[in-house]
Amino acid sequence: MPLTGKNYIQGETSALGAETFYSVDPRSNTAGDIAFTSATEAEVALAVAGACAAFQQMRHYAPSRIADLLEEIATQIEALGDALLHTADSETGLGLPRLTGERARATGQFRAFAALLRDGAYLRAIINTEAPGQPSLRQMQFPLGPVAVFAASNFPFAFSVAGGDTASALAAGCPVVVKAHPGHPATSELFAQALGKAVAAQGFPAGAFSLLQGKGIDVGGWLVAQDGIEAVGFTGSLRGGRALYDAAARRPRPIPVYAEMGSVNPVVITQAALAERGQDIAAGLVASVTMGSGQFCTNPGLILLEDSAASQDFIAAVTEKMGAAAAGVLLNEAIARGLHAAVRQTAAHEDISLLTGGSEVPDSAAFRFSNTVMQTTAAAIRADDRLQTEHFGPVTLFVLCDDAADLRAAVAALEGNLTATLHAEAAELETISDLLHQLREKAGRVIWNGFPTGVAVVAAMQHGGPYPATTAPATTSVGSNAIYRFLRPIAFQNVPDALLPAALQDANPLGITRQVDGQYRAGAV
Amino acid sequence: MPLTGKNYIQGETSALGAETFYSVDPRSNTAGDIAFTSATEAEVALAVAGACAAFQQMRHYAPSRIADLLEEIATQIEALGDALLHTADSETGLGLPRLTGERARATGQFRAFAALLRDGAYLRAIINTEAPGQPSLRQMQFPLGPVAVFAASNFPFAFSVAGGDTASALAAGCPVVVKAHPGHPATSELFAQALGKAVAAQGFPAGAFSLLQGKGIDVGGWLVAQDGIEAVGFTGSLRGGRALYDAAARRPRPIPVYAEMGSVNPVVITQAALAERGQDIAAGLVASVTMGSGQFCTNPGLILLEDSAASQDFIAAVTEKMGAAAAGVLLNEAIARGLHAAVRQTAAHEDISLLTGGSEVPDSAAFRFSNTVMQTTAAAIRADDRLQTEHFGPVTLFVLCDDAADLRAAVAALEGNLTATLHAEAAELETISDLLHQLREKAGRVIWNGFPTGVAVVAAMQHGGPYPATTAPATTSVGSNAIYRFLRPIAFQNVPDALLPAALQDANPLGITRQVDGQYRAGAV
Repeated sequence: MPLTGKNYIQGETSALGAETFYSVDPRSNTAGDIAFTSATEAEVALAVAGACAAFQQMRHYAPSRIADLLEEIATQIEALGDALLHTADSETGLGLPRLTGERARATGQFRAFAALLRDGAYLRAIINTEAPGQPSLRQMQFPLGPVAVFAASNFPFAFSVAGGDTASALAAGCPVVVKAHPGHPATSELFAQALGKAVAAQGFPAGAFSLLQGKGIDVGGWLVAQDGIEAVGFTGSLRGGRALYDAAARRPRPIPVYAEMGSVNPVVITQAALAERGQDIAAGLVASVTMGSGQFCTNPGLILLEDSAASQDFIAAVTEKMGAAAAGVLLNEAIARGLHAAVRQTAAHEDISLLTGGSEVPDSAAFRFSNTVMQTTAAAIRADDRLQTEHFGPVTLFVLCDDAADLRAAVAALEGNLTATLHAEAAELETISDLLHQLREKAGRVIWNGFPTGVAVVAAMQHGGPYPATTAPATTSVGSNAIYRFLRPIAFQNVPDALLPAALQDANPLGITRQVDGQYRAGAV
Repeated sequence: MPLTGKNYIQGETSALGAETFYSVDPRSNTAGDIAFTSATEAEVALAVAGACAAFQQMRHYAPSRIADLLEEIATQIEALGDALLHTADSETGLGLPRLTGERARATGQFRAFAALLRDGAYLRAIINTEAPGQPSLRQMQFPLGPVAVFAASNFPFAFSVAGGDTASALAAGCPVVVKAHPGHPATSELFAQALGKAVAAQGFPAGAFSLLQGKGIDVGGWLVAQDGIEAVGFTGSLRGGRALYDAAARRPRPIPVYAEMGSVNPVVITQAALAERGQDIAAGLVASVTMGSGQFCTNPGLILLEDSAASQDFIAAVTEKMGAAAAGVLLNEAIARGLHAAVRQTAAHEDISLLTGGSEVPDSAAFRFSNTVMQTTAAAIRADDRLQTEHFGPVTLFVLCDDAADLRAAVAALEGNLTATLHAEAAELETISDLLHQLREKAGRVIWNGFPTGVAVVAAMQHGGPYPATTAPATTSVGSNAIYRFLRPIAFQNVPDALLPAALQDANPLGITRQVDGQYRAGAV
């Protein structure tokens, strides 16, 4: 299907608005030739009304029926073929190898959630059978209702229109209204076509999925204010996520906002690790900081180590490698400008030394920023929270600590993060344990002798963390538990078997694992 | 120990403030002779600092050690003996039989959480073993940190200083700072003594529990604003809960507020049920509405039924029984005044008929309000949300619907509730299913042929619901899942076995049920 530049609302294209915008190729700073039309407030309302109507149907659907839809979506995404890869590449500059891998991840997420639904244990069915003085009580998880998803720019497949938020919300049984990221509107429309086809092919109500284009922040504001929206998924900046959180909290009827926002992802390296693997760690660190031009929410942006000759050699080695590495293409002009402003502000701080980089790459039509290394002290980090600001690009900041106590004090002063990493040696296990568990308090995921970029899509993944990493530290936006953001438990008291959902009936017709009077088991009651 | 009228902060009594207040016996409207001193902002800060310090110790504690504390607390509450019952009775007028039962419920909650901790499955340990291209990832639940608990007035044992919020937060491993309810300060101090003894006896840091007295809203405001507080548990009015929610959302670092607030707990009765069991339902309904003088968050305050001669007879019978039943004592002057104002406003609505009651009981020193029945139409409920206002007392509102469609439309217009109840007959199962599941969307718990008062403390209980019933519909404040309000998952990537918490180690030394590569099992990896 050709691209239209229009919104996709309840299975129809729509472009009632006057504001238009264009794709921009970040390698050449040239605009595409399709005008995309920002949605109007009336179109936003129409999409949400469609989602509400769809939910009245979908709330009757069995998990297996929703699983069929998720698998169909994966198939339809694959059917977009190479056009999807080339379109996304021209809008993001991320390159075909990366995008090919990311597409597999996106389709894999839909199939993984389908498998989760067919397994059924995710429903957390809990049964307390009737006992003297106690009624029969049975609970399981049910969908919240229509969900608003705000697409991210840095993962045009895995965290965008057909990304993890959409996959997990649909898996929960919730209709989805996506606010597309203006950085890749053509890619977004291709996904809307695939999702629309899947919805139609599986006989779901057309309002189960809608896509809203929007250049600025108006569309998102209208969307969150709609009474029919029951929850929000967001991946992006601290500023954007907090604005949505505040808007949702101010509603007459507040709703949860699951915003995955900024993170500097601290890495602590012990002297023993430096002595044993200093060169390997330097190479791994540079690869992690520059991966995807540094545009990962798990980018290691703060490296803490005790001051020593070895540490100074290590910093020099990383600085040299960073300076020598080619500057990658940034996603769009807004990110390039934001990165420049943030680095300029940090570099101007009196306690910061700029070791390499710190500027846009001259004589380049592409949006590029030089690979940047800065250095400060633990005392400075403790004194000024602004030094924990995320720099969204190929930038890292070394924090030299006077001694082990100074390092521990710096860790104590860290804000919330998605990840925290510790590089240490086996001989240090006894002395390092408390530091590792201190880091644990600051993050959603603790990594041993590795790097935080690379987020496995598995049940044990936790992609979340204390504020400002997210607005909801008890939830994850990656892995199967992401579905619980869009579910709530409902209990049934003394309800006849014939009226219970299949998952709670005595005979256990779905054959799922349930907690029955305290025991996990799969059989009948 | 004699009562002091002081706050309990980190194991010491403290009364730095100038504001004092007294217990009031609601049966006689006479004040007690102990002056209770509201906490100052400095005392609030001290309590939170103590909680933060305590958490640095407690985050190392194994679940079994916390279970020891919970069991000790139950023992110490029992050791308060009859003095607790008589003190609470004189402050609440709830009567010794009810309070004796409620004490068993409160101690039972602590012991149930202790059992949950010893079982260990609540940790939701998830293990993904290393695989090609995938690291070892293991996650479990960890405590959030210091929790602020706001005590309720209507359950001085089960939802107050040593109620479900405190029990579940401590069970999670979180230190607790309680803002006592000014309606029963002496009872609150007795519990603080018991908790303090338990904390000391089990060698926990003194900051693990503090109690703050406070007459007005200042203490609570100071408490929620403290940066060290990580979550809030609240049971009370919509106005109070929303104020706390808003204050927490405005913090530089927002935190979750688990507020259990207002609910009218709709009850739908079919014509077949009326024909078959009309008299029994009328008797049960009157007992449920007047139980505890109607001061239950699950009080059935909205009764929907189709208009018919049978319905009118039913309403007449309920009205007669309500008018004939003795008016119970209300908890305190604030509740008596608030109830009077709310009923007066509702009764003055042009679409409301007052059938009985509607006024304070004259010539009574006690705080009493007459048992009240009002009537309106489905059209009126749909037209004006104010008719869904909770009346916290022995009050219920009948909603006459023109026909089945009108009833369904009224149900569609309902706001969120803790519970929804359906009285119907076995012969109606096929036709009633959709109505039951429509009610499900409006509540946290659906009751068949029963009454919503009475909340069993079991795993399958869901005591929560969509706003305005709560600010967090995915959570419960009763039952074992209440612990998840105060936990968050943390994942460990490639962390050596020796550094992992015992619950995640290969050998499974705790012998707990874990999800290992998709399977629930108790053995080693």
